[in-house]
Amino acid sequence: MKHLLSTRDLSAASALRLLDVAEEMSAVGEREIKKLPALRGRTVVNLFFEDSTRTRISFEAAAKRLSADVINFAVKGSSVSKGESLKDTAQTLEAMSADAVVIRHPASGAPARLAASDWIDAAVINAGDGTHEHPTQALLDAFTLRRHWARIGGTPSAGTTLAGMKVLIVGDVLHSRVARSNVWLLTTLGAEVLLAGPPTLLPVGIGSWPCTVFYDLDEAIAQRPDAVMMLRLQAERMNAAFFPSTREYSRRWGFDDGRLALLDIMGLDDTVIMHPGPMNRGLEISAAADSPRSTILAQVRNGVSVRMAALYLLLSGDPHDDEPRDDETHSLPHDLPIPEGRTTR
Amino acid sequence: MKHLLSTRDLSAASALRLLDVAEEMSAVGEREIKKLPALRGRTVVNLFFEDSTRTRISFEAAAKRLSADVINFAVKGSSVSKGESLKDTAQTLEAMSADAVVIRHPASGAPARLAASDWIDAAVINAGDGTHEHPTQALLDAFTLRRHWARIGGTPSAGTTLAGMKVLIVGDVLHSRVARSNVWLLTTLGAEVLLAGPPTLLPVGIGSWPCTVFYDLDEAIAQRPDAVMMLRLQAERMNAAFFPSTREYSRRWGFDDGRLALLDIMGLDDTVIMHPGPMNRGLEISAAADSPRSTILAQVRNGVSVRMAALYLLLSGDPHDDEPRDDETHSLPHDLPIPEGRTTR
Amino acid sequence: MKHLLSTRDLSAASALRLLDVAEEMSAVGEREIKKLPALRGRTVVNLFFEDSTRTRISFEAAAKRLSADVINFAVKGSSVSKGESLKDTAQTLEAMSADAVVIRHPASGAPARLAASDWIDAAVINAGDGTHEHPTQALLDAFTLRRHWARIGGTPSAGTTLAGMKVLIVGDVLHSRVARSNVWLLTTLGAEVLLAGPPTLLPVGIGSWPCTVFYDLDEAIAQRPDAVMMLRLQAERMNAAFFPSTREYSRRWGFDDGRLALLDIMGLDDTVIMHPGPMNRGLEISAAADSPRSTILAQVRNGVSVRMAALYLLLSGDPHDDEPRDDETHSLPHDLPIPEGRTTR
Repeated sequence: MKHLLSTRDLSAASALRLLDVAEEMSAVGEREIKKLPALRGRTVVNLFFEDSTRTRISFEAAAKRLSADVINFAVKGSSVSKGESLKDTAQTLEAMSADAVVIRHPASGAPARLAASDWIDAAVINAGDGTHEHPTQALLDAFTLRRHWARIGGTPSAGTTLAGMKVLIVGDVLHSRVARSNVWLLTTLGAEVLLAGPPTLLPVGIGSWPCTVFYDLDEAIAQRPDAVMMLRLQAERMNAAFFPSTREYSRRWGFDDGRLALLDIMGLDDTVIMHPGPMNRGLEISAAADSPRSTILAQVRNGVSVRMAALYLLLSGDPHDDEPRDDETHSLPHDLPIPEGRTTR
Repeated sequence: MKHLLSTRDLSAASALRLLDVAEEMSAVGEREIKKLPALRGRTVVNLFFEDSTRTRISFEAAAKRLSADVINFAVKGSSVSKGESLKDTAQTLEAMSADAVVIRHPASGAPARLAASDWIDAAVINAGDGTHEHPTQALLDAFTLRRHWARIGGTPSAGTTLAGMKVLIVGDVLHSRVARSNVWLLTTLGAEVLLAGPPTLLPVGIGSWPCTVFYDLDEAIAQRPDAVMMLRLQAERMNAAFFPSTREYSRRWGFDDGRLALLDIMGLDDTVIMHPGPMNRGLEISAAADSPRSTILAQVRNGVSVRMAALYLLLSGDPHDDEPRDDETHSLPHDLPIPEGRTTR
Repeated sequence: MKHLLSTRDLSAASALRLLDVAEEMSAVGEREIKKLPALRGRTVVNLFFEDSTRTRISFEAAAKRLSADVINFAVKGSSVSKGESLKDTAQTLEAMSADAVVIRHPASGAPARLAASDWIDAAVINAGDGTHEHPTQALLDAFTLRRHWARIGGTPSAGTTLAGMKVLIVGDVLHSRVARSNVWLLTTLGAEVLLAGPPTLLPVGIGSWPCTVFYDLDEAIAQRPDAVMMLRLQAERMNAAFFPSTREYSRRWGFDDGRLALLDIMGLDDTVIMHPGPMNRGLEISAAADSPRSTILAQVRNGVSVRMAALYLLLSGDPHDDEPRDDETHSLPHDLPIPEGRTTR
């Protein structure tokens, strides 16, 4: 693996390898192992064309825990925003010997363009591009789901997939790179994905996605999902004319106290509530964020482990890269262990 | 000590322990010892909801001198400023395994709320909250005063208090967290505190503070203080209607050349002039800032030592924490050495 | 060498020593040597009164590759921008034990004022002051030129000068600190410097500069330069009334495809095109930036090496500093090796 650009291109084997390494990384930062020397002397540049403090500090923490040097390059107000091209910026970072460039960009495809170019030799990690993808978010979600799945279904082990799991993604799918990255990754890992949202906030081509679509949240919940992933309503990406009334949105699409109670009534004791953050509390999510079902903090914590794994695999030369691997994207290798999952629902 | 939130809650023993450790820390950064490995692998987050480059870089320098990793989280323009709650931000940092959170916040009490919550396990250090407290500023002031006191009164030694010392704090007490933190800490350490300022810039409940209040600066100086601490006039926190004319303010409350000369005339050879910075030169202070009486640069220097001591004590597990200690806040332990001080004034 | 303020004051011996050390530094960051421990525990402060992400991250990368701690102090929005004086800011950094202060300032002379003061003991490096100087940019340009010169003229070796080389600097000389620093340094190193630009963008006293001035770019190119250095048109420093039409500027002063072809026609096979970045593509430079003649990325790469050398020489106590050295600024020491250069042009 040379870059991490999207989950759509990620084979199940590569994704699982990353999740397995992330499991090992999750011990770092705990009392015993504060820091690994793996990337000492390597330089990771956070190249952010959009503000995103949370994602930036997650990558920064991950890189520092691997002993890399981190340089933050916020483009706002810099020469880049004065019209310098992505190419010139990239070449500047290349010339400074950046080993990895973590890029957040408002234009879909910018990271892929960077990686495909000969502007740069550094590993490129997509930290969110337009409405396209946000692969490390999906990987941390899959990591979180896999831990949950293993806990309820059996012993966690390396190579475990999400086969048999049912994940419901809710809300503003149209503007959500998180939704897209999760749809591809979760299906690649064997999960069944359901989508629910208002028609105005679903993309046009959604019919071709490997998911079932619902236009009513409660109907979707009736499918007994193992996880409900609430999306952030991205008001900042919306044309004001299309912006739903927040009260209406909250009532129809928010995971409010009533829906939290519904899970109990339905006997869905193991169903978790996810959110990529930052939350619009009272809008797409309310008290559910603080309930025992919430995996929101686990997601943040797992984000550092997953990003450590990504940096480690891209920069340190994964020995497993030499092994033959599954090249049929979106299909599961037959020899991967599959957890038993819950059988009664 | 788990957090450092205010000096009001700080026992004399804890304060002195911190000052003593700061004395040891003050050797680091000098030629011989550039850096201590004490906090290698620990992560210190500077969570700043208000701009304060000086305080931020002081904490950053302190943390790096102890080999900690530092992550700067400026809230302006981040998702937090878009309505994310303090709770969500805190939990994000917790999930990222922050070991200490240094927080500057415009709302009085925000750091205490953070520390009292179960949102976070990290040590919380108040780096200034509203008009409430700024404990590390008071500790660096006390450190500076203690060195001065030891120099003129006798041999400095661990455990030395400020008993016998008279400190005059001047100016905009109303908006000053620095004044509040100093009032509590200096009296805890045995000093006598005088306050002087215009009635409109003194807080309503000042009658209950353990200080003598003066409404005339020269009358206060006539009390022969050992130190005069000039406060920054915080125009940015003031209602324009209450803002005094700067010319009038400077004449009545500024430490100008005339008042500097007055100290000489009065034979107050050992009286020092302090200021927490940044200064409004020509307003609350003028040439006095550069006179041999000024401790302003010593204060900045001592700030790094005091913040190293705070981070060290909070994060490395102070062995002295197991020892029985003085729990009667605001009273002095009887066995602490007290310097002789000047006897003729 | 205590500070690095300008190239005008730099002796040939000091400049060559720095270039020679930079040659050694250029190996760091490559696969074998990722990092040198030379400045472990030293603190480098980037004190930027103007935005310049490229220069800031170049210094940051250089300092980190030498294991120094880096503190970024962007003045915008900080107390300094609220009227704190340069003196107070400098003293603050001094009190925090900064070992080097890299300063970018809109006022010409600010770094020199800082270095000449007794405000600070730290080494001062000018990272660009007003329209005055930008010495590390000129040093990286000289480094790039010297490598080019050695490649075409013979074996590169320590102490090699630029004697015999002809360098043409083109464009907005008036606002360019890069141009000024290059004029002084290149002539000190023995090169012949030509300037070309519109009369309105040439400074008044240019007659006294050690250069030949041309008012027509093609006429200047006819002098068969070994290098053409295109300057950034600094629209942001210009009075709108004096701003040339960009179309007109591009046609008369831009290095466009026609002029690139002209070099081939003239048989100037070894002539390189330089630009300090960030480029205004389509204005002062076009496809030439990507041609094999372009040294633009080499310049960026060499910038890190040159800044490492500057930090190393200023902070680590250069043993060569004890040796007798050339004090006659602007003259070449007689015993320095001079490359043969190209003889047929």
